[in-house]
Amino acid sequence: MAKKITDRSEDYSQWYQDVIREAKLADHSPVRGCMVIRPNGYALWENMKEALDGMFKETGHENAYFPLFIPKSFLSKEAQHVEGFAKECAVVTHSRLKSVDDGVEVDPDSRLEEELIVRPTSETIIWDAYRNWIQSYRDLPILINQWANVVRWEMRTRLFLRTMEFLWQEGHTAHATKEEAVEETERMLEVYRTFAEEYMAMPVKTGVKTESERFAGAVETYCIETLLQDNKALQAGTSHFLGQNFAKAFDVKFQSSEGSHEYVWATSWGVSTRLVGGLIMTHSDDQGLVIPPRLAPTQVVIVPIWKSDEQQENVLEYCDTIIEELKELDIRVKLDDRENYNPGWKFAEHEASGIPLRIAVGPRDLENHNVELARRDTLEKNIVDRDGLGERIEKTLKQIQIDLYDSAKKRIDENTHTVDSYEEFKEVIDEKGGFIYAHWDGSSETEEKIKDETKATIRCIPLNEGEEGKCMVTGKPSRQKVLFARSY
Amino acid sequence: MAKKITDRSEDYSQWYQDVIREAKLADHSPVRGCMVIRPNGYALWENMKEALDGMFKETGHENAYFPLFIPKSFLSKEAQHVEGFAKECAVVTHSRLKSVDDGVEVDPDSRLEEELIVRPTSETIIWDAYRNWIQSYRDLPILINQWANVVRWEMRTRLFLRTMEFLWQEGHTAHATKEEAVEETERMLEVYRTFAEEYMAMPVKTGVKTESERFAGAVETYCIETLLQDNKALQAGTSHFLGQNFAKAFDVKFQSSEGSHEYVWATSWGVSTRLVGGLIMTHSDDQGLVIPPRLAPTQVVIVPIWKSDEQQENVLEYCDTIIEELKELDIRVKLDDRENYNPGWKFAEHEASGIPLRIAVGPRDLENHNVELARRDTLEKNIVDRDGLGERIEKTLKQIQIDLYDSAKKRIDENTHTVDSYEEFKEVIDEKGGFIYAHWDGSSETEEKIKDETKATIRCIPLNEGEEGKCMVTGKPSRQKVLFARSY
Repeated sequence: MAKKITDRSEDYSQWYQDVIREAKLADHSPVRGCMVIRPNGYALWENMKEALDGMFKETGHENAYFPLFIPKSFLSKEAQHVEGFAKECAVVTHSRLKSVDDGVEVDPDSRLEEELIVRPTSETIIWDAYRNWIQSYRDLPILINQWANVVRWEMRTRLFLRTMEFLWQEGHTAHATKEEAVEETERMLEVYRTFAEEYMAMPVKTGVKTESERFAGAVETYCIETLLQDNKALQAGTSHFLGQNFAKAFDVKFQSSEGSHEYVWATSWGVSTRLVGGLIMTHSDDQGLVIPPRLAPTQVVIVPIWKSDEQQENVLEYCDTIIEELKELDIRVKLDDRENYNPGWKFAEHEASGIPLRIAVGPRDLENHNVELARRDTLEKNIVDRDGLGERIEKTLKQIQIDLYDSAKKRIDENTHTVDSYEEFKEVIDEKGGFIYAHWDGSSETEEKIKDETKATIRCIPLNEGEEGKCMVTGKPSRQKVLFARSY
Repeated sequence: MAKKITDRSEDYSQWYQDVIREAKLADHSPVRGCMVIRPNGYALWENMKEALDGMFKETGHENAYFPLFIPKSFLSKEAQHVEGFAKECAVVTHSRLKSVDDGVEVDPDSRLEEELIVRPTSETIIWDAYRNWIQSYRDLPILINQWANVVRWEMRTRLFLRTMEFLWQEGHTAHATKEEAVEETERMLEVYRTFAEEYMAMPVKTGVKTESERFAGAVETYCIETLLQDNKALQAGTSHFLGQNFAKAFDVKFQSSEGSHEYVWATSWGVSTRLVGGLIMTHSDDQGLVIPPRLAPTQVVIVPIWKSDEQQENVLEYCDTIIEELKELDIRVKLDDRENYNPGWKFAEHEASGIPLRIAVGPRDLENHNVELARRDTLEKNIVDRDGLGERIEKTLKQIQIDLYDSAKKRIDENTHTVDSYEEFKEVIDEKGGFIYAHWDGSSETEEKIKDETKATIRCIPLNEGEEGKCMVTGKPSRQKVLFARSY
C-alpha cells in the first residue's frame, strides 16, 4: 500500500492536511474558509466539549444561548471592540431571494433597515441582555457560558487552526467587584490549563498578553500557549478581564448593598475547535493521528482475524467476552468485524485515525489464550494473556495518557530557550524556532520592531515574575523576561 | 403578592408569555424575531438534546457539523427546495465594516462575489459533501445528524414556537435503496413519537403531510402533531423521504454491488427548540410552568425553614441527609438556602419555574421526623415520613410523569372529533376547535377551500388507513378520513 501521509520532515503543512484527511476529521467546504467537521472530528470535539462543560458547571456556570445576529450599531458601542472586529465581519443586508431566469437573485426590496453582523463574539449582544437582568447586587454574579458558532472573515485559513466559521464556547460573567472579576478570569485560565494538560496531554505556558495582542475591549487578556511540533506557538485559549468597559458601553449598573449605583465588572473567556488542531499537532506522527485516551471517541478497537466460518464464529465469540469485560470497566471499545476489508487494511485505518489501543485476535490466540495488543503512540506490539486483559488495558490507557504528556513536555522543554542578546535571539529563532524567554522594555515600538525583523511575537508575559534585567533590543530596563515565538 | 401570570381563560397568548417570563426561560432580543434562551430554558433544551442524541446514536447515527453558510447557487439546484426557502433567507453580501463619523458602515468594497445564505436547513450543503464521500455501495448508508442553529426570516414570531433563528437537529441520511430510505424515514418518525410521548409526556398523532404541506424537496413528509391547551395543533417534528431529488440535484451516484451506477436515496428529519413551546403549552397551568420529571433540570427542590441560628443549623443538617439520599438515587435535587428570600417567595418562584416536587423542612418536621412534600402538577401537599423518603420520591416522580401524559391524553381525546358533513365541521372548528377527522377528496383545491373558509389545515393523513367514504366538501370519493385542525 502506498503511504498516504507525507512525512513531517518532508512537508509539515502537507503532513497536517494528510493526517486530517486520512483520519477523516474534516474537509474543506465549497464556502471559502469554512470546514465540514466529519463524524470522527466531531466526536473528538464532543468529548472535549463534555469535559469542559463539566468543568464549567463545577465552577458554578450555566449555559444559555444568545442570538447569532448582532445589530451593526451594537458593535460600535465599545470603541476598541468595533475596531478589532470591523474588518472581518459577515454582514447580512437582505432577507429574501427572488427567482430570475437562470436561478435566484437577492431581492433588492428586502434590504434591511439596519444591517446585522454574524457574531464574531457575543459581548455586545450579551451585555445588552444583562442590562435587563441586573438591578441589584442580589442579581450578581451572573455566570453564563454559551456553546455556539462564530464567524470571523479570515483571509488565510487552515483546517481547525483558523477557519472563517468555528465552533467555540464563550463564557460571559458579571460581578459586583473588580476583585471578583479578576479572580474569575484567573479561575477560568486555570480551568483551561487543567483541561489542556490533563485531557489533551498538551503542556501549556500561561501568562497575560501585551497591549497590542489583547482582546479588543479587554483590560487584560490571559492566555494558554503551547508549542507545536514545527516549533511554532499556538494560542489555545484566552480569558479576559473586561473591567467596566462593556458595562459602560451598555449602561449596566447595579445597586450595591449600601445603596450606591455602580457599573458592573465583566469577564469573558473562550476556547474553540482550534484545540482540535492543537491536539493533532501535539501528538500525531508520520503514521497519522494520535489521540490521548481520555479524549478518544474509541479507546480500543478489536480486529478479529479468521479464515474459515468455524474460525470466524469462535473468534467472534472470544471477542465478545473481551468487549463485555472492557465495557464493564467503562472503556470505549469497538469491534471492527467488517467482512470486505482485510486485517492489514484495518490496521492502517485504525492507526491513521489515532485509536490508542488495538487488539488483534486470530485462531492461534484462542488456542494460546492470548491476544495481540498494539499501542498507537509507540507502535509497540505485545502478545499478552487473555486473563487480566481488562485491567491491563485500563492501566495501559492511563500510561499512554501520561506518556503522551511527558513526551510533549520533553519536546517543549527542549525547544524552550533563554537568551540574553538580540543577536542570540535572532540566531535561535531562525535556526531552532521554539519558545524564547528574553528581556523586553515593555514598549509597543520594540515589540513591533522585533516582530518586523524576526516574525516573532510576544506570546505572553509570564504570571510568575522573574528577575529584572535590560531589554535585549534597546537596553532599557525590563521588569521580567517575556515569552517569544513565531506562531499560528 | 400580585399574581404575575395571566389566567389562560383570560388571555391565552399573554399567559404563554407570562409563563416564559416568570420561569425565566427566554427573552425577546433586540434582533427582531430572535430570542435569548436563558439558563432555565437552555437547561431544558439540553435535557431534550441529551435524550434525543442518545436515541439517535442507538439507532446508528453519528454527529457531524456542516457550514453555516450556503452559496446562493446551491439553493437553486433543487427547484422545489429553493422555491420553499427563497422568501425567508438571511443573505450575507459583504465581509467588512469601515469607520465613519458616527459609527461604522458596511464597506462597499467588501461586496462578495457570490452571496451566502445563512442556512435555513442544510440539505444542499450536505449533499454537496456527500458527493465526495460516496463512491460505492460500501460507503452506504451514511447516517449523520447535526445539532445546529438555522435561520428562517419569519415575519410573525413567537418565543420558541416560531423564531427567526432557532436551534435544532437535522438528520441527513443516504441509502442504496428506496426501501431502506423509507424504512429510515419511518424509524426516525417513531423515535420522535417515542421521545414526545415518553420524555415530554406529550401525546402525538402521526401521519404524512399532504402535497401542499410537504417539505420543499421531499417526496413524502411524515410528522408528529400534538394539540395544545388552546385547541390549536402544533407540528412537533418531521421526517422526510427525499427520494433521489437531492442526489440528482448534486449528482450523487454510487456503484452498486452489481457494478451499475445509481442515484443515492435520501432522508432528512428534524426537531427544534419549538418543542420547548410545545412542552410549555401541553402541561403548564395558571401558576406557571409544569415540566415532566424526566426532562426537569431540577426534579426536587428543598426549601429549609428556620427562625433561629440553632434551628438553621439543625434544619440544614437534616436537609443534607435528604440530599445525600436523593443523589444516591440519581435524582436531580437542589437546596434553596438563599437567606435574602422568604419561604413563601421561594415557593412561588419554584412553582412558576415548574420544578416537579418541592420539599419544605422546618423545625417541627425535625421533631416529628417528617417533611412536607408538594407536587407541582396537582399542587397537592402532604406531610410524609422522613423514613423511606427517597423511594417515595422516586415513585412519585414516575407517577407524575405518567399522570401528566394521561391528563394530556385525556384532554386531546376529549378534543378530537369526527364529523361527517362540512356543516358539522365548520360548527365544531368554530365552537370547539381541536382535532377533527373528516373525509377529503385528496385534491389541493378542496384543501385550499377548507383552509380559506375555516382556517383549518390538514395536519396529517394518518398512517393506519381508515374506512373509505365521501369528501365532506365535494362528495367525491375519499380513501380515508384525514386529520384537520387550526394550527400554530
